[in-house]
Amino acid sequence: MGASIVNSPFTGAEAGDSNRVDYHGESALLRSIRDWLGPVAPPPPEGMGDDCAVLRPIPTGHQQLLTTDSLTYGQHFDAAARPEDAGAKLIKRNLSDIAAMGGQPGPALLNLLCGPDLSIIWLERFISGIRASCERYGVMIVGGDISALPAGQFTASLTLTGYAIGEPILRTGAAVGDFIYVTGTLGGSLRGKHLAFEPRLAAGQWLATQPTCTAMMDLTDGLGKDLAALLPQGSSAAIDLCRLPASPAAHQSAVAGKRSIQEHIFCDGEDYELLFTVTGTQPTEPFEKAWSEQFPALALSAIGRIIPAHPAGRYVDAKTEAALPWQSGFEHFKPA
Amino acid sequence: MGASIVNSPFTGAEAGDSNRVDYHGESALLRSIRDWLGPVAPPPPEGMGDDCAVLRPIPTGHQQLLTTDSLTYGQHFDAAARPEDAGAKLIKRNLSDIAAMGGQPGPALLNLLCGPDLSIIWLERFISGIRASCERYGVMIVGGDISALPAGQFTASLTLTGYAIGEPILRTGAAVGDFIYVTGTLGGSLRGKHLAFEPRLAAGQWLATQPTCTAMMDLTDGLGKDLAALLPQGSSAAIDLCRLPASPAAHQSAVAGKRSIQEHIFCDGEDYELLFTVTGTQPTEPFEKAWSEQFPALALSAIGRIIPAHPAGRYVDAKTEAALPWQSGFEHFKPA
Repeated sequence: MGASIVNSPFTGAEAGDSNRVDYHGESALLRSIRDWLGPVAPPPPEGMGDDCAVLRPIPTGHQQLLTTDSLTYGQHFDAAARPEDAGAKLIKRNLSDIAAMGGQPGPALLNLLCGPDLSIIWLERFISGIRASCERYGVMIVGGDISALPAGQFTASLTLTGYAIGEPILRTGAAVGDFIYVTGTLGGSLRGKHLAFEPRLAAGQWLATQPTCTAMMDLTDGLGKDLAALLPQGSSAAIDLCRLPASPAAHQSAVAGKRSIQEHIFCDGEDYELLFTVTGTQPTEPFEKAWSEQFPALALSAIGRIIPAHPAGRYVDAKTEAALPWQSGFEHFKPA
Repeated sequence: MGASIVNSPFTGAEAGDSNRVDYHGESALLRSIRDWLGPVAPPPPEGMGDDCAVLRPIPTGHQQLLTTDSLTYGQHFDAAARPEDAGAKLIKRNLSDIAAMGGQPGPALLNLLCGPDLSIIWLERFISGIRASCERYGVMIVGGDISALPAGQFTASLTLTGYAIGEPILRTGAAVGDFIYVTGTLGGSLRGKHLAFEPRLAAGQWLATQPTCTAMMDLTDGLGKDLAALLPQGSSAAIDLCRLPASPAAHQSAVAGKRSIQEHIFCDGEDYELLFTVTGTQPTEPFEKAWSEQFPALALSAIGRIIPAHPAGRYVDAKTEAALPWQSGFEHFKPA
């Protein structure tokens, strides 16, 4: 109980308390946020303070990338999370999208929407988590916006620019016969990884230089939902169940609850690993060897293969050809 | 009463009603939004559907612009607004920022945050307003995000790219002696203009080509607050009160209430006109003549001049040198 109260974004104090954001005007709040961001908030015209940010051109011949993602209290984090970790998560969620295109991150915009009772102390710690992640990954916060929500509400959105190192790897390049790979381990992310993950920027950039890599995305809603986006029309995936890389947290969740390890791997979401395909027209050994030289500490798992549409379903067991029961992952809004 | 109920974003229906967004999954909702956006939502990789949008490079030699602004129910619009007008306002608020840099708008990202009871019928009309404005001003929606808020809440954020036609005009270029101008008329925007305004893109782009134009911004928080951002350190503004261009709505508001026309002009906010300065080192007649040839239908008013810091205050009456009482405009959060 203590921890959750310590990390609540809201003060619990009545209007008039100096720890509430509504005690401070919008201009003072924006000045504080720029102070807290420090070196990752450059002055205008490159940074915030004018009507728009003016960005340096990206390197010639590269393609510009743009992505956005939100972080909402009660949905993407709760009072059990350290505010620094919540701030870092906002940056890393978006970095994971850039990684999934094989991109290099660039400047970002930050939108804050907060209730009048949001705690200034909490907000400073949230922003310091943003700053630490920005410093680590070379992101500048060049603009943004702050507006009011009712009491008890907090949402932050980040829009992140970037550019593709070479041709971006899309979700749509896979073909029947391609092998399906994932980085790292999957499942049970709510036990900690959903805050502590590392966006796979270096791996994504390297994969984008490999002509054998045909399609890529990051795993956010669970393998069960996300893999469907990589499968070409009229195809299924044959999954090698013993090759699925279960995280220790997936094991713990399966032991503690009623769902199998495989179900946690397919349905939990928020893995922030890369899911990608490698052409099936040539042996994969050279690719796997090159990977292990580049990323000796990052697990790589060949979890299956794309096959022609199977009558049993979208995902089938590679050994038995029986349909797998986990055809979907996390959906916002939809009642479970 | 009838009008406000017709335009409420929320259904009032219990869970299980097909007009509530939570009746539909996130994926189905995203598909509907893409359908409603029609031609302004291109397919991936240029548009939504992959991890990032891949943007075409901007014309060589131009500088990239980036801005973001939110629209919250109960704050920037209410149930008296047609949903189409609310959607258009989100696009136009951001276009006004691009206009203030002398820019040309480019692709945009849309973030929606909504309660489970948001009405699908209302949302379709809101998106159709976004579509109409995008078609009119040549903006494509290339990505976005949707996430959940508690019941009764709705916020939309737009991040708009663009590029400067020539050098962008910043807020920081003004000097003592420069003349202060505004486009259009000011005050009383809540009587309708806050929804019906036209972003001053053509005027902003033309001003950016005029070497005599030294600084520019758009008027969003009211002349009283915004003008301070254009004044160099150690300067004041001498305001010619009879040259302030009052809107018909400012007149109506002054007649209906207790505040003067000038107070409405200084403090109301949401004018979405351009506020800019013209060098005081040469006669302004050629500039004004060129303006009236370019924009015969758009009022131009020389409302004052930048002077060395005046002991009476930041804004003084040009005739009497008495301090003007309206030193600030609208502030989010800050209690009135």
